[in-house]
Amino acid sequence: MIATLINGHAGGGIDSADRGLQYGDGLFETIACRDGAPRWLALHLERLQQGCERLRIAFRDVDLLRAEIRGLAAGQQRCIVKVIVTRGTATRRGYAPAGDEQPTRIVSRHDWPQPPGRADAGFQLGFSSVTLGTNPLLAGLKHLNRLEQVLAQMQCDAAGLDEVLMLSSAGQVIGGSMSNVFFADDSGLFTPELSECGVAGIMRRLVLQAAGRHGSGVCVRLVEPSELATVREAFLTNVRWGLQSVRVLQGRTLPSDAYAQQLRGLIDAAHA
Amino acid sequence: MIATLINGHAGGGIDSADRGLQYGDGLFETIACRDGAPRWLALHLERLQQGCERLRIAFRDVDLLRAEIRGLAAGQQRCIVKVIVTRGTATRRGYAPAGDEQPTRIVSRHDWPQPPGRADAGFQLGFSSVTLGTNPLLAGLKHLNRLEQVLAQMQCDAAGLDEVLMLSSAGQVIGGSMSNVFFADDSGLFTPELSECGVAGIMRRLVLQAAGRHGSGVCVRLVEPSELATVREAFLTNVRWGLQSVRVLQGRTLPSDAYAQQLRGLIDAAHA
Repeated sequence: MIATLINGHAGGGIDSADRGLQYGDGLFETIACRDGAPRWLALHLERLQQGCERLRIAFRDVDLLRAEIRGLAAGQQRCIVKVIVTRGTATRRGYAPAGDEQPTRIVSRHDWPQPPGRADAGFQLGFSSVTLGTNPLLAGLKHLNRLEQVLAQMQCDAAGLDEVLMLSSAGQVIGGSMSNVFFADDSGLFTPELSECGVAGIMRRLVLQAAGRHGSGVCVRLVEPSELATVREAFLTNVRWGLQSVRVLQGRTLPSDAYAQQLRGLIDAAHA
Repeated sequence: MIATLINGHAGGGIDSADRGLQYGDGLFETIACRDGAPRWLALHLERLQQGCERLRIAFRDVDLLRAEIRGLAAGQQRCIVKVIVTRGTATRRGYAPAGDEQPTRIVSRHDWPQPPGRADAGFQLGFSSVTLGTNPLLAGLKHLNRLEQVLAQMQCDAAGLDEVLMLSSAGQVIGGSMSNVFFADDSGLFTPELSECGVAGIMRRLVLQAAGRHGSGVCVRLVEPSELATVREAFLTNVRWGLQSVRVLQGRTLPSDAYAQQLRGLIDAAHA
């Protein structure tokens, strides 16, 4: 059931001179769709536009894009719509954009994937040996430079884990290879700050909001790997999984998933 | 005079599900061609194959690729041939490759670009504020994740510099945004080591070889930005520029280009 629109047209290919291919010069969004409609679409489009501003990609067709996403989601009980916006076909050679490129817009619909095998029993989470390079100019963005995540997921597959935690090159815990992470200990909930690397996920934002409004909040801070030996709860977030409890963290079974249960309820109620 | 072959066929487009576009999951080479032939082709193909091995891209069509590069260079007095090899069209969604992808091979011919305005008088070189994230698994590779270079070159354009020097996130000098860099002081020649980030350039390799065989060698080591205040000579390398002397480094005019002159002669003689 894959369907793809490229600049509004069904099918066709991408120019091999597109800077998205040449340099990873673009951004993407992965949107969860239920009951014929994209969820949290405004937040996805806001992040995409902020990313375009930071990379100085002159993307103006947000209204067209919104309509295309809704069109692909319509009539589908459950699907994923992926959006890619690149700076467009290069109008000169070399890393520096000329400034007159016309952004490329790709919107594709995909089946909702099956969860990993052990998902019902809670995830098994371990550390990846693949680290994340730091760059404050790119941190938080869902850009197309994703080789580190590709390498980490290869490892995840090989190790039989459901997801892997990645550290920054500076040694801090950043998040999963395709998710953000939250932890709880006696001091409450905390999650890595992402000013040096990592992707600022939509579900992470919803969790921060829900916990701030209705709970005791989340401390956003540097997280050392050594801290994880004493956490009582951990959960992963992305728009497909929602809040996915971690049952086994580095071989240790965690005793609680109380925060995840409470926050799931709050987020569902707010977005019902 | 652009001509492009995609998996051996002229023209056409790239599948929007190609992992090269989706994640920057691939590699490239930029090959200088003179008098109808690609220069240092064996070195380019060797680096490409080593990159494929490190990323576990099952690229086997090196003989076809070699023939295509030669075909595009034939009859051209001077041109650039760019090669991209990606892991291929995704056969499942997500960062982890399925393992059965068929690599995509893109070979394109481009005009030899005009050098920057001040090139005859020697380059002006300054520091970029864009840093390079470190990752030993990707260091040295000419992979498709190039957003940091794109951002740095935007800055270079804006600052009126011919090239910018980039530091790693750990604060060491790594190289230019599209070149490697060599320095000389009273102790002799030195160049940044690239085990944490940067691209191991073909011309860099030729310089190391020539200086090792016929000169007093090059010290490959960590380079601190503070050291550049006392260097007597600096030059940049890539296969298009060869050895490009730096005339002005961070506003200071350098007194010498003796090493560059000597090494240019040695490399030309070895590859005449």
